[in-house]
Amino acid sequence: MQAVFYEGDRKVSVGTNAPIAPQKGEVQLKVSHCGICGTDLHIFHGAMDQRVTFPQVLGHEMSGTVHAIGEGVSDFSIGDKVVVMPLAPCGDCPACEAGHSHICHNLKFLGIDTPGAFQSYWTVPAYTLHKLPDELSLKHGALIEPLAVACHDVRLADVKDGDHVVVLGGGPIGMLVALVAKNAGANVIISEINPYRVSLANQLGLKAINPQETDLVDLVMTETDHAGADIVFEVSGSQAGANIMTDLLRTRGLAVIVAIFAKKPEIDLFRFFWRELRLQGVRVYESQDFADAIALAASGQLPLDELITDVRPLNDLQSGFEDMEKGGQVMKILLEI
Amino acid sequence: MQAVFYEGDRKVSVGTNAPIAPQKGEVQLKVSHCGICGTDLHIFHGAMDQRVTFPQVLGHEMSGTVHAIGEGVSDFSIGDKVVVMPLAPCGDCPACEAGHSHICHNLKFLGIDTPGAFQSYWTVPAYTLHKLPDELSLKHGALIEPLAVACHDVRLADVKDGDHVVVLGGGPIGMLVALVAKNAGANVIISEINPYRVSLANQLGLKAINPQETDLVDLVMTETDHAGADIVFEVSGSQAGANIMTDLLRTRGLAVIVAIFAKKPEIDLFRFFWRELRLQGVRVYESQDFADAIALAASGQLPLDELITDVRPLNDLQSGFEDMEKGGQVMKILLEI
Repeated sequence: MQAVFYEGDRKVSVGTNAPIAPQKGEVQLKVSHCGICGTDLHIFHGAMDQRVTFPQVLGHEMSGTVHAIGEGVSDFSIGDKVVVMPLAPCGDCPACEAGHSHICHNLKFLGIDTPGAFQSYWTVPAYTLHKLPDELSLKHGALIEPLAVACHDVRLADVKDGDHVVVLGGGPIGMLVALVAKNAGANVIISEINPYRVSLANQLGLKAINPQETDLVDLVMTETDHAGADIVFEVSGSQAGANIMTDLLRTRGLAVIVAIFAKKPEIDLFRFFWRELRLQGVRVYESQDFADAIALAASGQLPLDELITDVRPLNDLQSGFEDMEKGGQVMKILLEI
Repeated sequence: MQAVFYEGDRKVSVGTNAPIAPQKGEVQLKVSHCGICGTDLHIFHGAMDQRVTFPQVLGHEMSGTVHAIGEGVSDFSIGDKVVVMPLAPCGDCPACEAGHSHICHNLKFLGIDTPGAFQSYWTVPAYTLHKLPDELSLKHGALIEPLAVACHDVRLADVKDGDHVVVLGGGPIGMLVALVAKNAGANVIISEINPYRVSLANQLGLKAINPQETDLVDLVMTETDHAGADIVFEVSGSQAGANIMTDLLRTRGLAVIVAIFAKKPEIDLFRFFWRELRLQGVRVYESQDFADAIALAASGQLPLDELITDVRPLNDLQSGFEDMEKGGQVMKILLEI
């Protein structure tokens, strides 16, 4: 069967792979679509070389159908449309014992720490599967994983109807966070410097500005009668984002750290003290977030087609990475497997 | 009447002052005791010269009795033992409107932005007063204001029975936070580099260590079966404290920022993301915290006498400041007015 391998050193090779028969508790999926994640791009850049062993099949933002079923799996049938929540927790660490197995101390992330979905058939534990309803296409199904991230972030932030929300960074995750928060009734502003992303967000009915052209703090203070935003989602991972988030928040407002900060930023802890601000880190998702994401996507309320820049064949992964890193007119690229 | 004035440039003068008759809604207090706060010391150091006008009577950690009553004040009688919650909010800003008037955007802090209690008689709005019960001495009453800070911090952190709590910094506020958290049922460790403070904390039945001698992360991990602390109170205001707090916390644990960080520290936001950590700034107190502090002090469960290093006459404010800044064998110094 066809597979693409990350070989290290910014190189992807197209090849073949032997399908793996599902063992007890496992299911073999026929992969339909798989999106290219920002994390895949980080790996392509070599930023996770210490964690990823080469050659590795990447890919975790997938949709597919059940192709073969291992012993002891009774909840799924051949042909079921499914997505994978790609987390394999240890079940035994303090995080798992406290009920937070999605951020298990020994977590294996399928498609990073184990082979992923950029191949024709993918064998995974049955407990990772979520069924898709008939009305949700497999193409849209490939957006469930990043949408579940957004559902998790918005749920943990407890976004309420009428809240003033700012999203710093308008890439795929920032855009989805903004859409989910807006769907929850919030007034949302996206701050993004890439003109294509600003324009796309505006097309999707989101208010988006370039903070190099518009004074974001001024805008938020005007819109909130000088109170400030209830919630700021920091999705940029930049010092500029870390700086402005404390200026934007109202008294006791919440900064949600979605981005991966590779470098420790300076944070205005005096402002946290002065305004009794709050901060919460958020990572991946829980089962409930996958269920929420599937229900929301199936409801047809989100402009999912508009987020998909294009759909390419599997062997275009290399060009997909290269287009993403140019940072131009790209939102989400899907590979059709 | 006697008063001491902060003259700027690290100088205190002893003089006299005319008592101010209470206007409508005001009460004139005969000051009994007034503690020297770390904030008073900051002012003495010139760190708040932009905010404080000279000469100024400082002092806000006070106890006293009602001496004269202005028009329209019906809840107090001459001779009542009282303490002052020294906050005068504007009532009109977004924080006040959201119910957080204790951190009003235009807050006047009595004894900093207005004259304080280092004088024989002090005239204040009646709404700032809290009555002391008979069983609580005026000497202990002077500890209510800092104790209310600790009650606020522990309340907002939602400390629960059995929680593992670390307090970074064992000055008066850190010590009170530790005592209040322990009283709430928490297992508390204080981290402090001053040997006198470590020794005093141990005498008070608190577990205290010097992090330059004991590996604090190791200790906490051993005590929590490698889960980490539920809550860390950062009371040191140091980069070292900001560094270690993220290493100490369990998954979804809470860092409480009590300290005033004059300089923006570097913060490990990756760790906040990775472990879904939380952070909350906390400042001063609300009425409920004054009520809690008075009830707790009156219960006799806290070793208040042991926290009072000594009681000096009013005209020893200058020497009090100088002893505090030496950082030696000093916890809380009270002035008897």
